[in-house]
Amino acid sequence: MFTTLVAAVPAKTKTAGYGATSASAPLAPFSFARREPLPQDVQIEVLYCGVCHSDLHTVRNEWNNATFPVVPGHEIVGRVTAVGSDVKRFKVGDLAAVGCMVDSCRTCANCKAGLEQYCDVAFVGTYNSPDKHLGGMTYGGYSKSIVVDEYFVLHVPDKTNLAGVAPLLCAGITTYSPLRHWKVSKGQKVGIVGLGGLGHMGVKLANAMGAHVVLFTTSPNKKEDAQRLGAHEVVVSKNQKEMDRHLGSFDFILDTVSAPHDLNAYLTLIKRDGTLTLVGAPPQPPTIEVFNLIFKRRQLAGSLIGGIPETQEMLDFCAKHKLTSDVEVIPIQKINEAYERMLRSDVKYRFVIDMASL
Amino acid sequence: MFTTLVAAVPAKTKTAGYGATSASAPLAPFSFARREPLPQDVQIEVLYCGVCHSDLHTVRNEWNNATFPVVPGHEIVGRVTAVGSDVKRFKVGDLAAVGCMVDSCRTCANCKAGLEQYCDVAFVGTYNSPDKHLGGMTYGGYSKSIVVDEYFVLHVPDKTNLAGVAPLLCAGITTYSPLRHWKVSKGQKVGIVGLGGLGHMGVKLANAMGAHVVLFTTSPNKKEDAQRLGAHEVVVSKNQKEMDRHLGSFDFILDTVSAPHDLNAYLTLIKRDGTLTLVGAPPQPPTIEVFNLIFKRRQLAGSLIGGIPETQEMLDFCAKHKLTSDVEVIPIQKINEAYERMLRSDVKYRFVIDMASL
Repeated sequence: MFTTLVAAVPAKTKTAGYGATSASAPLAPFSFARREPLPQDVQIEVLYCGVCHSDLHTVRNEWNNATFPVVPGHEIVGRVTAVGSDVKRFKVGDLAAVGCMVDSCRTCANCKAGLEQYCDVAFVGTYNSPDKHLGGMTYGGYSKSIVVDEYFVLHVPDKTNLAGVAPLLCAGITTYSPLRHWKVSKGQKVGIVGLGGLGHMGVKLANAMGAHVVLFTTSPNKKEDAQRLGAHEVVVSKNQKEMDRHLGSFDFILDTVSAPHDLNAYLTLIKRDGTLTLVGAPPQPPTIEVFNLIFKRRQLAGSLIGGIPETQEMLDFCAKHKLTSDVEVIPIQKINEAYERMLRSDVKYRFVIDMASL
Repeated sequence: MFTTLVAAVPAKTKTAGYGATSASAPLAPFSFARREPLPQDVQIEVLYCGVCHSDLHTVRNEWNNATFPVVPGHEIVGRVTAVGSDVKRFKVGDLAAVGCMVDSCRTCANCKAGLEQYCDVAFVGTYNSPDKHLGGMTYGGYSKSIVVDEYFVLHVPDKTNLAGVAPLLCAGITTYSPLRHWKVSKGQKVGIVGLGGLGHMGVKLANAMGAHVVLFTTSPNKKEDAQRLGAHEVVVSKNQKEMDRHLGSFDFILDTVSAPHDLNAYLTLIKRDGTLTLVGAPPQPPTIEVFNLIFKRRQLAGSLIGGIPETQEMLDFCAKHKLTSDVEVIPIQKINEAYERMLRSDVKYRFVIDMASL
């Protein structure tokens, strides 16, 4: 007659990682428990983990939502070391990847549409989200191993450059999803604002989709590199004359910049029925000149990572087009230094931790 | 060997109207010239002309773009009194209507798509735009007659309530076009913000398109009237509790309010992939919380009147569904008083001038 709603706590094993115990503490060796694989779980030895700016924001509690200790990392590539009894799509020895999500409600309209990132209940982040199995918070990929429900584990079709694949799990899908959703294709003129971890993937992906790609940057010295990555044109956004040459000409612009900047300057570059999509949120809410929307029926939109089916599609697309992230591989002992360099944009274009160093 | 690019000035006839000679002058009787119909022109005796808030903005030069004298009026219904030799779609005695535009470049991609309102060169407004035939500026519908290129003249399928048809030419098409463009249909939940000249048409049209219509207003006393017009629910936007009941539930919201207000309050009511479209521009650029866009892939957009083919489609749709504007018919001698009342929102919901009074 009675059922219990509290799942039995699964068996646990210790794993090693790097974590922060407070907003002011550096990342340091940290030992914690992972659950033993449940029937639907895949256990993964982490080989590489990308370093996302969100890791830094969370570790330093800049979004005021961190629960310490924090073990960051949501750009994970590894090898399967064990699978639960119900797992069908993975076996021991397979390559596997995990991105920003490790669970969601699975029942709302968004989850059913494969858009778990917009889950009406809230997706479970790979780190710093409530852990329904062990209690406490989820711990991310700056660690030796991770255990994730099969549904949220991706196949890795590119076996040759695993370090370069890791950042695809966040930087890749965050730019791929809006480029696909707004139907970027051959014959279109597409802008990418900013050449960082996200922007450099945006340039590569939009190029591979066949668009004429224009990179907007505040740094004239990024011109050559942007062209190497796939930009057909580079516009220095501080140069009003250069900007004016592109008025009303873009089908789509993807803005990857979180630093405060004027969105109206980009809205005016968009043609009728085009869209400016933001994947970064400036700390201060930007102001919008409404006439810039009305006079060409333009749209301002946002986009959040991507769903699990689309993340697999992106990994397959990147393998097919031989696209990976440009990375600098570091041992985990250099992570605090890497954060400082990331703040100075001193990385081309993503740090990736070689987890063998742990 | 030589051609001249300056068209010969056509023959002119005098007509009577009401105009303003400066930003501080009231509207007063004003006599001016109309061209005799050129081969492609339709000459129309104005029977009714709606009073749009833009008329007031222009007459008082509140947008700093008025060239005086100004004869306003772009919600025109009348009867054809003469046609040029090339005119095929109208004959003397037909009912005819003219909206916000009387010309455009006709050659850009937008014009060719029937979206003359987004003409890359700039459409020619029915008033206060350069008049390429007579020089000076175009003069609008607060007048006995008007001469317009056949392409920009609409047929009037509803012969029974011509005064109620007049506001469809601006208030009607401005709300119809975005409702159509964002594919409002049966089964959807659609919000209309504001119950003025535009909003009351938005309610009627969204209802006729089969949507579940929610009207947002700051005035609790508008509830009953909104329901009479077709709103299924009315939300008092100052009541946070009422607003919160609708979080994340709208497919589309059309915002008709030009007064300053918080757009974020409406963005949060929209579901994943939904759109908030603005047809009014607040005097101060609004601020947008970017997370409101990112977390549900929401869109903020603008929309401007509608193209000529869509304006005809709207008039046909309204005739089929027996929709007209709720109007208060006035003689032209009361126009200055009507402007004062319009500023107090003391009109349900559009003043229309009976031009026989002139």
